[in-house]
Amino acid sequence: MLRTHTCGELNIANVGQTVTLCGWVQRSRDMGGMTFIDLRDRYGITQLAFNMQTNAALCEEARKLGREFVIAATGKVAERESKNLKISTGEIEIIVEKLEILNAAKTPPFTIEDETDGGDELRMKYRYLDLRRNAVRKNLELRHRMAIETRNYLDKQNFIEVETPVLIKSTPEGARDFVVPSRMNPGEFYALPQSPQTFKQLLMVSGFDRYYQIVKCFRDEDLRADRQPEFTQIDCEMSFITQEDILQTFEGLVKYLFKTVKNIDISEVPRMSYADAMKYYGNDKPDIRFEMKLVELNNSKNNLTAGKNFKLFDEAGLVVAICAKACAEYTRKQIDELTEWVKRPQIGMSGLVWARWNAEGIKSSVDKFYSQEDVKKWFEAAGGKEGDLMLILAGEENKTRKAMSELRLEMGNRLSLRNPNDYKVLWVLDFPLLEWSEENNRWHAMHHPFTSPKPEDVYLLDTNPGAVRANAYDMVINGVEVGGGSIRIFNKHLQKKMFSILGFTDEDAQAQFGFLMNAFEYGAPPHGGIAFGFDRLCSLFGGAESIRDFIAFPKNNSGRDLMIDAPSPISKEQLVELYIDIVKKD
Amino acid sequence: MLRTHTCGELNIANVGQTVTLCGWVQRSRDMGGMTFIDLRDRYGITQLAFNMQTNAALCEEARKLGREFVIAATGKVAERESKNLKISTGEIEIIVEKLEILNAAKTPPFTIEDETDGGDELRMKYRYLDLRRNAVRKNLELRHRMAIETRNYLDKQNFIEVETPVLIKSTPEGARDFVVPSRMNPGEFYALPQSPQTFKQLLMVSGFDRYYQIVKCFRDEDLRADRQPEFTQIDCEMSFITQEDILQTFEGLVKYLFKTVKNIDISEVPRMSYADAMKYYGNDKPDIRFEMKLVELNNSKNNLTAGKNFKLFDEAGLVVAICAKACAEYTRKQIDELTEWVKRPQIGMSGLVWARWNAEGIKSSVDKFYSQEDVKKWFEAAGGKEGDLMLILAGEENKTRKAMSELRLEMGNRLSLRNPNDYKVLWVLDFPLLEWSEENNRWHAMHHPFTSPKPEDVYLLDTNPGAVRANAYDMVINGVEVGGGSIRIFNKHLQKKMFSILGFTDEDAQAQFGFLMNAFEYGAPPHGGIAFGFDRLCSLFGGAESIRDFIAFPKNNSGRDLMIDAPSPISKEQLVELYIDIVKKD
Repeated sequence: MLRTHTCGELNIANVGQTVTLCGWVQRSRDMGGMTFIDLRDRYGITQLAFNMQTNAALCEEARKLGREFVIAATGKVAERESKNLKISTGEIEIIVEKLEILNAAKTPPFTIEDETDGGDELRMKYRYLDLRRNAVRKNLELRHRMAIETRNYLDKQNFIEVETPVLIKSTPEGARDFVVPSRMNPGEFYALPQSPQTFKQLLMVSGFDRYYQIVKCFRDEDLRADRQPEFTQIDCEMSFITQEDILQTFEGLVKYLFKTVKNIDISEVPRMSYADAMKYYGNDKPDIRFEMKLVELNNSKNNLTAGKNFKLFDEAGLVVAICAKACAEYTRKQIDELTEWVKRPQIGMSGLVWARWNAEGIKSSVDKFYSQEDVKKWFEAAGGKEGDLMLILAGEENKTRKAMSELRLEMGNRLSLRNPNDYKVLWVLDFPLLEWSEENNRWHAMHHPFTSPKPEDVYLLDTNPGAVRANAYDMVINGVEVGGGSIRIFNKHLQKKMFSILGFTDEDAQAQFGFLMNAFEYGAPPHGGIAFGFDRLCSLFGGAESIRDFIAFPKNNSGRDLMIDAPSPISKEQLVELYIDIVKKD
Repeated sequence: MLRTHTCGELNIANVGQTVTLCGWVQRSRDMGGMTFIDLRDRYGITQLAFNMQTNAALCEEARKLGREFVIAATGKVAERESKNLKISTGEIEIIVEKLEILNAAKTPPFTIEDETDGGDELRMKYRYLDLRRNAVRKNLELRHRMAIETRNYLDKQNFIEVETPVLIKSTPEGARDFVVPSRMNPGEFYALPQSPQTFKQLLMVSGFDRYYQIVKCFRDEDLRADRQPEFTQIDCEMSFITQEDILQTFEGLVKYLFKTVKNIDISEVPRMSYADAMKYYGNDKPDIRFEMKLVELNNSKNNLTAGKNFKLFDEAGLVVAICAKACAEYTRKQIDELTEWVKRPQIGMSGLVWARWNAEGIKSSVDKFYSQEDVKKWFEAAGGKEGDLMLILAGEENKTRKAMSELRLEMGNRLSLRNPNDYKVLWVLDFPLLEWSEENNRWHAMHHPFTSPKPEDVYLLDTNPGAVRANAYDMVINGVEVGGGSIRIFNKHLQKKMFSILGFTDEDAQAQFGFLMNAFEYGAPPHGGIAFGFDRLCSLFGGAESIRDFIAFPKNNSGRDLMIDAPSPISKEQLVELYIDIVKKD
């Protein structure tokens, strides 16, 4: 080793020892007769001291070192005069006797500091420098820790990690595949897996009754801000289980991760049906760190808005309210801000109705149509009381519900009810099996085509497929879907029926998934599983919004790696060997 | 859970308990009034007992169960009359009270036994059934264990696992890349990594000073019997180290794996130069479980064959011998067999010269040219004595050395000197930096273009590149190369020079590896690393020759997955979206 210690391990107990450290020059300070250098490595920072009086030549040399130079420094550990008690090495410094420049460095294009001056593009291009920053490095260390603890938990539960192939077969169901032309099989292509779904099911047929894998998956989708073409899943499957076993095993995993990685006790993981999630939170991944549930003011059981000649409400598929506690004194300006907020194109509502209840009584923006008594019923329906503010949206049902869900989260933010260090874990259950695609004029699998319907709903498959509930479940943390799965179909006939409902011909189903349906004929056990988005889980544990900084070498929104400049053209020879040609874009 | 226990955990201590087991019907036996079923799962086999007298209906039901049916059986644990002490569950059976068929099974196309009747193709097509066989399942369990212990060792040594990207950039150096057309960047392609080489070096530039990853890699090569287009590496890199640190760290890893996985103590890992490996073993991955070193009979220092008018030897670039201990009494038939063996096209020699030394004295197949005294000198050079047999090949140097290396291994096999349960680990060091490619008329990097020359040889780079030794090392176990690596170049100018020696123009080098050379300018630490072939390492630990049965879903020699039938054609729509077209094969 070129070093005897790291820059993070020396302290007052080492005083007097002669040591050699290697690392990067974080910063240097000339203080009259002394020069101090902060030497940085992965483990910490240690101060190097050079004395003009005792060793002028060496001190001069040190003064020439630029930021990010890589050096080796040998010297004695000494107690510092002015201590820095914020870091473990802050009580000592190295009185340097020997200095070696291992590599010089040009001035980096941005500062290697927690708060850097580099913009996104620049940091992506020089990702290897961005990764030197504490903040980014800590994210990857967290990710490593998460992977270790995930494996520890699952290994202890007798799960076996099995690697499934990356070069597989393209299937039309689901998102778009990345494909790989096969040189040895001209005109044919592999596909990169969107998930190891069929393979893990085959492993269950093989009898590996508890499988997991931390595995790269691929989706060629148009990338939204926080999607990556390649991403990592914790992929799991179990046999001879019921849904309850899956829920307990994997809330166990998440509790274990919170405890070991963050020392947080998650006492309980409540469960909510998809129907309730939509009704009370307006979406299928409710943030339950705060209440402020959606209240339908005009549903079939209880219409609190009808008969007052207010056209907007009377014509609305949904009139829905939230009650913001203790916000009755919101100013006109604040209300206007919220109104503008719901009118933004991303939300797309035409306006916001409000009602407040303060010492002066109840007042609303629809006083013309609704009496204080009328509005008081709204407050009562929402559990509101004096001091509270109600916000009400009305319009087409789905759009309005979605908009209110967003407004609820926005109010949560404004009222600081969404503390990133407060973690609330939730199961959402009983998803619909199918959803209708207007675009394709057919049913789509809401989870995927291998998800089993609830036995008690199977009779509806022919008559009312949209009403069939699935044995499917999502885990939601703080309003973010971190994982999802289902109990699978393990019967060939039911699987065939499912494909037929999804619009597959028998031939297509056989060509695409014949191997799986065949496998079901040779003794398939009851099985089910789950997959967690590992990048997302890490970012959540890291208290961050974006997954990008929890991936060592992420791609940008065009799927481009700005550092290595990929994708890129390939040679004519490569194309010829692969029996493909490029079609020019019009 | 549908079961209370697995089929591997019940024993005499559980007698009297009521249990439910789930699994597959391995076999059933009707013995007059009783029916016995061996129920199998991943954990073992437990006997189910059905009694015609006490429960005829249930017993009839049990008699209808076919092989590989999936069932759940509930009953009482009872002590068996005829015990099977070979398995932990062999003292008990379950007196079944309730039987449920979870799934029926067609008769599998081959038997699910250690010695199956299924051929290779059939087992690949029904891989999910092949994986049910004990032998194959144990291989994957071994692999899982190897991965766990690898991580345990490296984690303890402060290595951090970092995931590097799978969608990267195609580079012309090395083997052929698999490529992935980019829909979002028409006419451009990603490549799948042949290894994470440049990324791990960039992580060193980032300061992650100890990196590892168990990672899929890809090579689009024509597949020899035991290669796979996708394979797994234990990929590692360290900073601020010398070659010695790498050797110690990773012989530590391999010793740890042998100890924890196989309870074998590897006392020492000897080291051999590449030059000695070639000289004494005829190849760069010597099997040192046995001696039988190659002895050059006509080298420049000591020519023991010249001047006797034996044309074959006189004209030979190399006359090389091995001495087979205690084989002087080999029969004419055995010698003839060996002669045929070296004449096979794979070896390609024109004949074999032999010499024996027994009680009657020394005799050879070249008595006409060489006296007993002459031949005795050969024996002496090889450390041979009475009782031994010498085998001698002569011809063009490289070919002859290679042939003798093969013959040595063959003799090792015939003499049972290559026990698969005897493990000898070896470092081969000081590889040449470059090798000349007649085909391309230029130098190739023997390891890869990032490998550093030995400092003391750098001066030869311009004048005699072929003589430059590299800071490169291979780990060899029992004649199999399981890992290799090098100390890297970390200086931009040296890296540029290396690319220029390899025939890159400055522009090409910049276009392909500019990001790495740029990174070297921003403070790159001295670094080096190693990668182990994980599939190979597992097969070696499993005592098997082929890697295929240590991979859950392998591909055949045409790169085809026979089970899912991939690769396969994709739709016209997919091609159009990707801006590519298929060129028909002539």
